[in-house]
Amino acid sequence: MAETQNRIAQTDLAPTVISIDAMGGDSGIKAVIGGMEKSARAHEGLRFIVHGDEAEIRRCLKRRPDLAALTEIVHTTEVISMDDKPSAALRRGKESSMWLTISSVKNGAAQAAVSCGNTGALMAMSTVQLRKTPGVARPAIAILWPSTNKQGYNILLDAGADIKADPQDLLKYAIMGASYARNGLGLRQPRVGLLNVGTEEFKGRVELQDAAKLIGTIATSSDFQFVGFVEGSDVPSNRVDIIVTDGFTGNIALKTAEGTARQVSDLLKAAFTHTLLSRLGALFALTSLRRLKNRIDPRKVNGGVFLGLNGTVVKSHGGADATGVAAAIGLAYNLAQNDFAEKLSARVAAGLAASKDVLSNMDEVSP
Amino acid sequence: MAETQNRIAQTDLAPTVISIDAMGGDSGIKAVIGGMEKSARAHEGLRFIVHGDEAEIRRCLKRRPDLAALTEIVHTTEVISMDDKPSAALRRGKESSMWLTISSVKNGAAQAAVSCGNTGALMAMSTVQLRKTPGVARPAIAILWPSTNKQGYNILLDAGADIKADPQDLLKYAIMGASYARNGLGLRQPRVGLLNVGTEEFKGRVELQDAAKLIGTIATSSDFQFVGFVEGSDVPSNRVDIIVTDGFTGNIALKTAEGTARQVSDLLKAAFTHTLLSRLGALFALTSLRRLKNRIDPRKVNGGVFLGLNGTVVKSHGGADATGVAAAIGLAYNLAQNDFAEKLSARVAAGLAASKDVLSNMDEVSP
Repeated sequence: MAETQNRIAQTDLAPTVISIDAMGGDSGIKAVIGGMEKSARAHEGLRFIVHGDEAEIRRCLKRRPDLAALTEIVHTTEVISMDDKPSAALRRGKESSMWLTISSVKNGAAQAAVSCGNTGALMAMSTVQLRKTPGVARPAIAILWPSTNKQGYNILLDAGADIKADPQDLLKYAIMGASYARNGLGLRQPRVGLLNVGTEEFKGRVELQDAAKLIGTIATSSDFQFVGFVEGSDVPSNRVDIIVTDGFTGNIALKTAEGTARQVSDLLKAAFTHTLLSRLGALFALTSLRRLKNRIDPRKVNGGVFLGLNGTVVKSHGGADATGVAAAIGLAYNLAQNDFAEKLSARVAAGLAASKDVLSNMDEVSP
Repeated sequence: MAETQNRIAQTDLAPTVISIDAMGGDSGIKAVIGGMEKSARAHEGLRFIVHGDEAEIRRCLKRRPDLAALTEIVHTTEVISMDDKPSAALRRGKESSMWLTISSVKNGAAQAAVSCGNTGALMAMSTVQLRKTPGVARPAIAILWPSTNKQGYNILLDAGADIKADPQDLLKYAIMGASYARNGLGLRQPRVGLLNVGTEEFKGRVELQDAAKLIGTIATSSDFQFVGFVEGSDVPSNRVDIIVTDGFTGNIALKTAEGTARQVSDLLKAAFTHTLLSRLGALFALTSLRRLKNRIDPRKVNGGVFLGLNGTVVKSHGGADATGVAAAIGLAYNLAQNDFAEKLSARVAAGLAASKDVLSNMDEVSP
């Protein structure tokens, strides 16, 4: 029905420019360009600055004149690989597509950045160029976790930006997570929980007690609800919207859940191909099983957001296909539209002011 | 076919006596007695000392004369509840079924103990009465984790006995886990992995580097293979047989996996009841689905073993039914038959001797 030109809608809206790293992902430039096209169809006013090998990008854009019209290309052939150490990437990567992608946000040409590349290098380059939000010592990676909540996802942070977090870091994770939930998931009064172990013998580490005190103090003035400690089993539940933890624990929880989901799905596949009758059963249930697969499709929840920087950076999964890249770009678009980085910064400042008294007492007790 | 008397086999073998806490579980004395009966049928030469309300136990044993003949009852009505703090349980619980259950192991009347009660209290009472194995500062809880390995399970420890573990504790967890794998799962050269975060930016905490060095030093002489760091996604995999971590991380991983498995299973149930056709599909696949359910039935892998004490204590899940209790008793029986506590103690001593040089260097570096 629609002509080629109309597949990407024209608009009078002020454009939202997303800076894209076309290189460094496992699926190549084609998947990135495919994702850009998908997301441009879904979001009005989207424009791109794409960084990478110009000849190859032009080849991919050749049959996509609509997308080409929305896209500015910045040429480079330098790539940060998945194996590069962050320190080495910082030293030698100033001409890389990843570095330049973040530069476009830094210099104001774009409102957010998306990369499928090496997480550690991306965090290091983002921190160096965009700098930390005032008051934030440890930026965090916030991920979306499929949940039984109405919004379909919970937010977990830190998913692995830093292996440590003290009570003040955890306080800021709570503030930043709540800000993300408001701007990314549209939750007005998100519920924040602090990840801890079972309540039997142990009431958790001392720093978690301190963090709970801090977060409880500022919850009301920061427009979120603090539900206290939550356990691992609560992460995908509807008891909570945001799960706060250090990056070591968060990363272990995330990967353990991924491993478990894969294991159950493998066993299920085996069960359904075991006999002719079970194959027939699977055939009958195909639509419902597809709906389930769709519901927990990791490609549709793709995108870890870096929180605590003066600018929005979204890390897409390294192996993301066009659907996955489109999800990450969509996330960046939504956050850019909401002036997320500015709002987050204001929230952190207000939260720190509100926790000042408790913080100064805490410093006296545990210097 | 078999008469009632023959359902539990008579034997000339030296009996293996298991001390049972009949109280404190969520499913009551009946589930415990049911579990004893199931396990007595499965394991030759099993005898019981059961601690709890004698009148109620006698009622449960009335229709089970075979089991009654194998069972000695020690009367008490004192119960440790799930909400009791370990410290309070220790102070006031010296007449409780839990305390007395461990006493039977301490005084040599039984070779192992099983309780469905409060984990923290059970660990505290076990430590006070049985005392720690020489060289072990922090006893650990080892659990069985369904895996794609030939043996069907991996071992993870510590699942939550202590929220902290230094490199030397992790070294002993590796030694104890390997000993458990040999005696509990029959693995001659088990593979040990140390749980850590992704390999990109972070190579994990400093104490994990130290622990890896220590474990690597003694692996060969301790008859296990050290595969180095593993990630959360490896926990249910066949890359490794034993996953070593601190009790905080282990508990979070365990509960996150439980939450994820429950979530996937709920979604699956919903998918299969969504339409008439999908219901029909489920019906066709019923046998295969039952096989799957059987494969990952948590009742059949019930039992956390306390490692690092002079005696074997198995913690059954609080909500275990007769099948679950029987699994925990079976585990205790196998370990008792293998003189597990003695072997573990010898392994720890040998491992410490082998790591002496590295340990003394480490003490100099980080006192």
